[in-house]
Amino acid sequence: MGSKEDPYRVVLSENEIPDAWYNIMPDLPVPPPPPIHPATREPCTADDLLPLFPLELVKQEVSQERYIEIPEPVMDVYKLYRPSPLHRAYRLEKELDTPAKIFYKNESLSPAGSHKPNTAIPQAYYNKAEGVEHLTTETGAGQWGSALALGCKLFGIDLEVYMVKISYQQKPYRRTMIETWGAKVFASPTDRTEAGRAMLAEDPDCPGSLGLAISEAVEACMTSDNTKYALGSVLNHVCMHQTIVGLEAKAQMEKIDEYPDEVIGCVGGGSNYSGLAFPFMKDKFDGKELRFIAVEPVSCPTLTKGKYEYDFGDQAETTPLLKMYTLGHKFIPSPIHAGGLRYHGDAPLLSLLVNEGYMDAVAYRQTEVFEAAMMFARTEGIIIAPETAHCVKYTIDEALKCRESGESKTLLFNLSGHGLLDLKGYEEYLAGNLVD
Amino acid sequence: MGSKEDPYRVVLSENEIPDAWYNIMPDLPVPPPPPIHPATREPCTADDLLPLFPLELVKQEVSQERYIEIPEPVMDVYKLYRPSPLHRAYRLEKELDTPAKIFYKNESLSPAGSHKPNTAIPQAYYNKAEGVEHLTTETGAGQWGSALALGCKLFGIDLEVYMVKISYQQKPYRRTMIETWGAKVFASPTDRTEAGRAMLAEDPDCPGSLGLAISEAVEACMTSDNTKYALGSVLNHVCMHQTIVGLEAKAQMEKIDEYPDEVIGCVGGGSNYSGLAFPFMKDKFDGKELRFIAVEPVSCPTLTKGKYEYDFGDQAETTPLLKMYTLGHKFIPSPIHAGGLRYHGDAPLLSLLVNEGYMDAVAYRQTEVFEAAMMFARTEGIIIAPETAHCVKYTIDEALKCRESGESKTLLFNLSGHGLLDLKGYEEYLAGNLVD
Repeated sequence: MGSKEDPYRVVLSENEIPDAWYNIMPDLPVPPPPPIHPATREPCTADDLLPLFPLELVKQEVSQERYIEIPEPVMDVYKLYRPSPLHRAYRLEKELDTPAKIFYKNESLSPAGSHKPNTAIPQAYYNKAEGVEHLTTETGAGQWGSALALGCKLFGIDLEVYMVKISYQQKPYRRTMIETWGAKVFASPTDRTEAGRAMLAEDPDCPGSLGLAISEAVEACMTSDNTKYALGSVLNHVCMHQTIVGLEAKAQMEKIDEYPDEVIGCVGGGSNYSGLAFPFMKDKFDGKELRFIAVEPVSCPTLTKGKYEYDFGDQAETTPLLKMYTLGHKFIPSPIHAGGLRYHGDAPLLSLLVNEGYMDAVAYRQTEVFEAAMMFARTEGIIIAPETAHCVKYTIDEALKCRESGESKTLLFNLSGHGLLDLKGYEEYLAGNLVD
Repeated sequence: MGSKEDPYRVVLSENEIPDAWYNIMPDLPVPPPPPIHPATREPCTADDLLPLFPLELVKQEVSQERYIEIPEPVMDVYKLYRPSPLHRAYRLEKELDTPAKIFYKNESLSPAGSHKPNTAIPQAYYNKAEGVEHLTTETGAGQWGSALALGCKLFGIDLEVYMVKISYQQKPYRRTMIETWGAKVFASPTDRTEAGRAMLAEDPDCPGSLGLAISEAVEACMTSDNTKYALGSVLNHVCMHQTIVGLEAKAQMEKIDEYPDEVIGCVGGGSNYSGLAFPFMKDKFDGKELRFIAVEPVSCPTLTKGKYEYDFGDQAETTPLLKMYTLGHKFIPSPIHAGGLRYHGDAPLLSLLVNEGYMDAVAYRQTEVFEAAMMFARTEGIIIAPETAHCVKYTIDEALKCRESGESKTLLFNLSGHGLLDLKGYEEYLAGNLVD
């Protein structure tokens, strides 16, 4: 271990960053069900989406091109933190005494601390390129809000962030981070929108939800001049931007003659996992044998307990209807620390692949998830986000099964973010105060 | 910019990590004044230091070998986060409209978020190798305490951390981080030691200082079985372990045919700056023309206002006397956010080089330093530690001078840590509540 052939980390040079994102759309086993207009109940047209998104992103949302070139200004910003390293988890393997090989793609090294800048940067760029001056968005744990604030600052766009109130309270540093990058933050539900005021009238103590914050951000966009809206997950173009993760990971594994038996990730809206999984899924479409595991919290079990049907993306029924696994758009999950996984729905592309049997899903409870995070911190050194800890829990369990069976599986997961702004959760875990 | 010749980041592969640290001792222009025993007032012998440090570190402290090989188990842990990237700050240059070229070595990507693991890891290793079971240490801002907790966890040693009370209160997440890696943390002054109790009797509200926390950690070491002490800065062996930073930076600049006109760093105890500077200082000894700038806070102006004389390393006068720039070992600096720079003394090696005219020092106020940090966050994307912000302030000023003079200087600074656990300082700055 640690040799040239079996390194701890596989690092690419700047000019090895893939020059195009992978668009899974043309390769899907069945055609993706279109978004449905909330009023007409007809499939959405480009015109329906243009009030919310710039033209180029609307095009990407429905594109059938397999590869979409990464614009140079986007690439220039990617180079602040990309390519990201691929690690071999030798110490974790040793701790588990497993014959499994564990790899992780480390997306925690971006300035925002997660994979979110991978789409925040192109979204800011395309809006700027089309003359948009203001953006609105929502954020759960604050990962997306801070990433978009970074992207908007670097391309010179104003940003308003509607942050789920429970996270706003649990993670004050995330708010400061967003403000450091020049954006405005509001605790959702706010009294700034119809949707927010309606919820506050019903429940003044509402902790908020991603679905509600989306309603507020969309409403703020629709009622403001030269303003568009940005979403940090769920949509096709968002998942596509994240494929930079999987494309790099494939190139890195190739360099050391490795290939995963299982590709693993945590799923809230689905973007980090799509990003890692889709470039490998292409191989599965081409006949390669490998498994895909989406990991979610028991308290928000979209893929494991939800229904695959058309539903609104937001609480207030303002977004197009999307065909996806959903717990119902009125669902408000308990305030677990993994705020980024507290979403009632899931990316339609991921949902389709789960429904077609290309992906499996599992769910874990908060305490066992933090237990896995502790083991990871104490072996691999990295304090991971509670979201990421979900897929680490699965990976550990699978590696332990390999110890039983003697199988030497190659496991690959996406270390989607660090937990340095989630240390309150670790504090509660260490004090024995964490609840499931 | 951003081309193969002029990349945003220069990345080395794992097998390009230097295999030895650089020991500046044999190359110094004058012999280094020895540490003096506090009781006998004679130069310390190895025997004087062995109650505190393992033999190998005592040897390194006085070694005249120019290069000391990095042991394989240390290298294996380094590979969790090394080599670190060297960045070109194109966006900052553009914002400043300067002909200067600005480079920074990014040590913020380690799991602990700073350069501190570079010495924490070998210190934990050497102690473990000699059978030590427990370590004690102090920490200011918490960067060192968390780094040593990481190192100790990975090599299986127990650790007690005495954390300066003001930082313990300002940075609760740092404490959780230390505990996540399995160490115990106490707010200093504590009632666990004579030194702590004496200070509490004098001033029950004492915010603590690094000098006092050192006294407590040393006392705890001396009064416990199979226990040694670890220091995160100041000493020769600590500065030497940090030279991995400068050695990598030199290799990286060589790859793109660049060389610095000025090597810049913030200085508290002196370890991060020594680490970057010493390998370049070797070239200055060999006749090369370049400048070295150590940057410190006005509120703890050791190099700019202190005296070059023998002084204790700690408040309670228990450590050997070191010849260094010092504000007096009873000095308690105001509670600025850059907790890592709140030390009354400075590394003897750095002090000698300043005294001999090989290095210059400048000091800045807290508000202007945070202003520089904001500009850096909004151009280069990285939210830096308040400590690091000191040298960014100098770098910005120097780049602006280049704009005036038209000179195209090449500036290199050490981005010693990120500020994600210092966001309270950013919050105060944004709210206009920060004081100098």
